[in-house]
Amino acid sequence: MNLRSSDPETLIAAAAGGDKSAISRLISLIERGGDPARRVSRLTYGRGDSYTVGLTGAPGAGKSTLTSCLIAEIRAAGRPVAVLAVDPSSPFTGGAILGDRVRMQDHALDEGVFIRSMATRGHLGGLALATPEAVRVLAAAGIGLVLVETVGVGQVEVDIARAADTTVVVVNPGWGDTIQANKAGLLEIADVFVINKADRPGVAETRRDLDNMLDMSSTMGPWRPPIVSTVASTGEGVGELWAAVAAHREHLERSGELALRRTARLCEELSAVLARGIEQRVAALEGGARYQRARDEVVSGACDPYTAAEDLLEALGL
Amino acid sequence: MNLRSSDPETLIAAAAGGDKSAISRLISLIERGGDPARRVSRLTYGRGDSYTVGLTGAPGAGKSTLTSCLIAEIRAAGRPVAVLAVDPSSPFTGGAILGDRVRMQDHALDEGVFIRSMATRGHLGGLALATPEAVRVLAAAGIGLVLVETVGVGQVEVDIARAADTTVVVVNPGWGDTIQANKAGLLEIADVFVINKADRPGVAETRRDLDNMLDMSSTMGPWRPPIVSTVASTGEGVGELWAAVAAHREHLERSGELALRRTARLCEELSAVLARGIEQRVAALEGGARYQRARDEVVSGACDPYTAAEDLLEALGL
Repeated sequence: MNLRSSDPETLIAAAAGGDKSAISRLISLIERGGDPARRVSRLTYGRGDSYTVGLTGAPGAGKSTLTSCLIAEIRAAGRPVAVLAVDPSSPFTGGAILGDRVRMQDHALDEGVFIRSMATRGHLGGLALATPEAVRVLAAAGIGLVLVETVGVGQVEVDIARAADTTVVVVNPGWGDTIQANKAGLLEIADVFVINKADRPGVAETRRDLDNMLDMSSTMGPWRPPIVSTVASTGEGVGELWAAVAAHREHLERSGELALRRTARLCEELSAVLARGIEQRVAALEGGARYQRARDEVVSGACDPYTAAEDLLEALGL
Repeated sequence: MNLRSSDPETLIAAAAGGDKSAISRLISLIERGGDPARRVSRLTYGRGDSYTVGLTGAPGAGKSTLTSCLIAEIRAAGRPVAVLAVDPSSPFTGGAILGDRVRMQDHALDEGVFIRSMATRGHLGGLALATPEAVRVLAAAGIGLVLVETVGVGQVEVDIARAADTTVVVVNPGWGDTIQANKAGLLEIADVFVINKADRPGVAETRRDLDNMLDMSSTMGPWRPPIVSTVASTGEGVGELWAAVAAHREHLERSGELALRRTARLCEELSAVLARGIEQRVAALEGGARYQRARDEVVSGACDPYTAAEDLLEALGL
């Protein structure tokens, strides 16, 4: 391919042929937004889906090392795999590899592994919109399995879970004392729990703690999240973790829940895209004469903001 | 008045006559939203403004005690005053007095003092929309001075500052070690700094720390925020604090900045109301047949979310 090309169709053809730099540039186009991003979306939509596994947990829990172990596990079975490392707090874009992702470099020369950092802070619509689009690019490139790892905390975890088919929540022994407040939220999104760094004391207590939480949960469906112990630094337990992910995938497929989850996700995505389109139109509206008049009336005290807003929307035919 | 009346006009007339329960019920109407809230907005808009002083700072900094001292100071001069205690994390509405506001009960029997808690979590548009509306109700009731105190942290502080004419940031001796990360944000919103609990060690260091921050600030205009020390539990320094607030008010009025700030605030309010109106229309749209069709096309893979959203907006005339 022409390495300077930024034409979406050319890039997608190259990506489908296994060209990693083409995949990377397609994701860059998505990150930047605008018309090229839309063309990429149109061209990659409906061409099949990749299975997406989200890894979430507190900073320092060992998500990155665990992801690296999972890559090795997946590659041993001969399947291609992609990693999206999402950093919602960073304004950087363009595929910079994050510092703590260095150990993933072990896999950098493997043709069957694609690793990409995504910085979503600047992305309109954020993670919720950027991730599914990137996953569709990867699907179009023939990579049927995507690990999405987040560098961050809080709301992001929920966003990761929304974008993933299976969500793995990584905790450490003794976690219960430190992140009490967030437990209920993690319980809601976890499909599999991992107690990583299980060579440290407190594994049994943490497992009991998680089990108690699961016993008391009133929202749990037919799938009870299994609890796996790992030592990512040695690879111990990683096979069992991957088996748990596979079991969850099988459960989702057999029960029909995978299709339901994906449909719900697409509807959310449509709503988000719609809201973004409307925001852009409001921004455009705010540059216009009609808005200026309404503003002047509000500022002079002639009209309250509610009436002014209603009049504006009516004038727009809304 | 008829105590059972919930007619906005009747309530506003009663409020203007000094009826506190009428004021409280008008604010409840605003909190609940919908048509009655809009009528209250329309009826109270453009009838004059109250001067608004926001108090913000970390939980435990002594905002509530300080507010109580300020009430005493203001009442000594014979002026009526209102306190809005905003709890953005609480879903309660209807004027429940917060627990740590008990010491304000000293003023509960004073006819010239109105104290109200507002829970904004359920309020569409949140604090940014609820506060200015409540302030206009208070203005219509003839209360020309409003203290807005927040129970909370983070983004809320910025919202309080946006809604206030003068923002007082309350810190404690030794604060510098604990909330390092937030300093720049506080610097941006502070019109007056208070070092409360100044009977504790570390006052001089905290003052030097704040002074250094102010020296290095590149965004500061002609007003340099003064730093006042108080011991709210004894009332020490509260007179000086109120004098600093008065000096800031005089500066705003003399320089013309008060009018500019209020104009900017009204424009923000109009944008927020507009965005909310559009959100409601999108929600309504999502119940309709056209949206259903678009959704089906997206789910079946026939159309990507971007094209579907664009088509929907075009169909709306946007």
